[in-house]
Amino acid sequence: MREKTFVLAPDSFKESMSAKEVCIAMEKGLRKVYPDAEYIHVPMADGGEGTVQSLVDASGGQMYTKEVTGPLGEPVTAQFGIMGDGHTAAIEMASASGIQLVNKADRNPLITTTYGTGELIRECLDRGIRSIIIGIGGSATNDGGTGMAEALGAKFLDADGGVLPRGGGSLDRLAGIDVSGLDERLQQVQLIVACDVTNPLCGERGASVVFGPQKGATPELVQQLDANLAHYAEVVKQQLGKDVRDLPGAGAAGGLGAGLMIFTRATLQRGIEIVIEYTGLKEKMAGADLVFTGEGGIDFQTKFGKTPYGVAATAKAGGKKVIALAGYIGEGIDTLYAEGIDAIFGIVPGASELDKLLKDGPANVERTCENIARVLKLAE
Amino acid sequence: MREKTFVLAPDSFKESMSAKEVCIAMEKGLRKVYPDAEYIHVPMADGGEGTVQSLVDASGGQMYTKEVTGPLGEPVTAQFGIMGDGHTAAIEMASASGIQLVNKADRNPLITTTYGTGELIRECLDRGIRSIIIGIGGSATNDGGTGMAEALGAKFLDADGGVLPRGGGSLDRLAGIDVSGLDERLQQVQLIVACDVTNPLCGERGASVVFGPQKGATPELVQQLDANLAHYAEVVKQQLGKDVRDLPGAGAAGGLGAGLMIFTRATLQRGIEIVIEYTGLKEKMAGADLVFTGEGGIDFQTKFGKTPYGVAATAKAGGKKVIALAGYIGEGIDTLYAEGIDAIFGIVPGASELDKLLKDGPANVERTCENIARVLKLAE
Repeated sequence: MREKTFVLAPDSFKESMSAKEVCIAMEKGLRKVYPDAEYIHVPMADGGEGTVQSLVDASGGQMYTKEVTGPLGEPVTAQFGIMGDGHTAAIEMASASGIQLVNKADRNPLITTTYGTGELIRECLDRGIRSIIIGIGGSATNDGGTGMAEALGAKFLDADGGVLPRGGGSLDRLAGIDVSGLDERLQQVQLIVACDVTNPLCGERGASVVFGPQKGATPELVQQLDANLAHYAEVVKQQLGKDVRDLPGAGAAGGLGAGLMIFTRATLQRGIEIVIEYTGLKEKMAGADLVFTGEGGIDFQTKFGKTPYGVAATAKAGGKKVIALAGYIGEGIDTLYAEGIDAIFGIVPGASELDKLLKDGPANVERTCENIARVLKLAE
Repeated sequence: MREKTFVLAPDSFKESMSAKEVCIAMEKGLRKVYPDAEYIHVPMADGGEGTVQSLVDASGGQMYTKEVTGPLGEPVTAQFGIMGDGHTAAIEMASASGIQLVNKADRNPLITTTYGTGELIRECLDRGIRSIIIGIGGSATNDGGTGMAEALGAKFLDADGGVLPRGGGSLDRLAGIDVSGLDERLQQVQLIVACDVTNPLCGERGASVVFGPQKGATPELVQQLDANLAHYAEVVKQQLGKDVRDLPGAGAAGGLGAGLMIFTRATLQRGIEIVIEYTGLKEKMAGADLVFTGEGGIDFQTKFGKTPYGVAATAKAGGKKVIALAGYIGEGIDTLYAEGIDAIFGIVPGASELDKLLKDGPANVERTCENIARVLKLAE
């Protein structure tokens, strides 16, 4: 009998296991029933947290660290990855400019900056990278990506020609943008922005109104930040000839979406699509008898671009079957069957403290996969 | 294609669902994938709580109530069942004489009595029952079954010929047993005692030492109760010519095991074996493609006579495969695979309060069964 091939393509289980660790636990469980099967690990992500790690893991690349400027100007040690091909980097803005780097009491989108994210991009340029995948979720900032651009050589000036302080709170005084010093290497590098939101830069659905409050902005500050970004967009339009204000995704990450579109060769793409492409998921699935995926939580939102949905869509297109595991199964999973997720199993063994469940994640994935395999076996 | 036949033989999920309700939830889930399959419900139990209900449900019988004397002499409304054949009754001593009927502060095995259990047996005699299955777990008593015998006409007398007060605390004064008034119909009736414990009546492994403390006995009381039961056994031996003291199971239910062996035509049998026999599980499995079982909790103890173990053993003997569901999966389930449980799945959807899990039991069983069926289907 031909040995089976299983493709294991889970996301991370947040606060419990990296995607790679989930792959290992899945294989351990399945291998008890199918000891001679082939197991292809494709640690996944959807553009959010863990995306860099998954791309690095899936491609056999490597993680690096770099000290950069944090959201409030303090030094932070950011991580980034270089994929197995050696010329594609993966960075997450949150690693340099993320909300998790700022204590709740200190959150102030008037002054937080994306400067560190720009430094990470510069580091990639220094290393001869040709493509940068950049995840932009979880930002602490509302600066329209001006900090990022400044780190790459742009200057944001007031009416007297003085350099503006960093942060979205100063952009009302923006009078001129000097791009003469912008790093020329940016023209040779493609930036692939993992972005699932379609918010414009300003207005009711803009960066400040929708995402400002969670970054510490009061209603008054939201108004001010929104007006500042509108002014920034106007200056950009007049001086650089680029009208990004209403582009979908311009409002992502406090306007970093707009900033990347203004100052770099950026294309925005859904996170899960980027990961599927750069992990080679489709090709790796070609010989699979069955695909396993999973995520910390699976519910009706899963079909809005989460990893199990993306894996299932790819599998379905290739005529492959998919079983999904989750630490938490929420409402509305019935709608996922039609999307190509053929079965969904929780891994939790019973009523338990969340802490213990997070700690026992690998054992619970292993046990659940073993038992799924036992069912497969008895149905053979 | 021939339609599949599924046998659904779960225990109850304690505090969440009766075995019958589990069967219904299982079918609901499986039917989404196998709408035209045949579903055979065999609500199970293992001789413990829920046994009467399961025997009644599995046989198409009926439940009845009867007001009897509670453990402390107060009236209690006890339940019992008559099975579909019309001549087999199922009673639980706990329904008349159980620990759950006595407030913690009032627990006193010196005076608690099995009198109500005897009244239940008498009720069965009055109804022309020919076989009585009796579950004896969960007793509040330590009276050696003397209360039960008294309700059926026996008299326990002191040296002056006076009737002793009820309860194990008076047995030190037992001088004579008058069985002349014992209900003669008992000779025509078979009592099948569901009993998984092998404890003798007295001594280190006896009723008082092992089970006394949980019924409210202090170390001093335990000594006294143990001595009283030893004296009782001695009187029985001398006057009735029966030596039950060291028989396995004599110490069950505060010595009710012994009492039943002394005063009735009782045979002791493991609870799960009785249920398997009287539900006709083996025959109902004959045409099954797959058997589902389950219980509130499954762990290494399951193989000591719990329902999923009994179902699996029966299935294995008939070459059938078994999938088990549990609300809680504990340690050591690996040892169950060899016993005939082919796969085990938890039903819990994630970290959650126990209350909510108990309430959501049916939905969680349904979802889990649907997804198991989806795996079976994709492996077809």
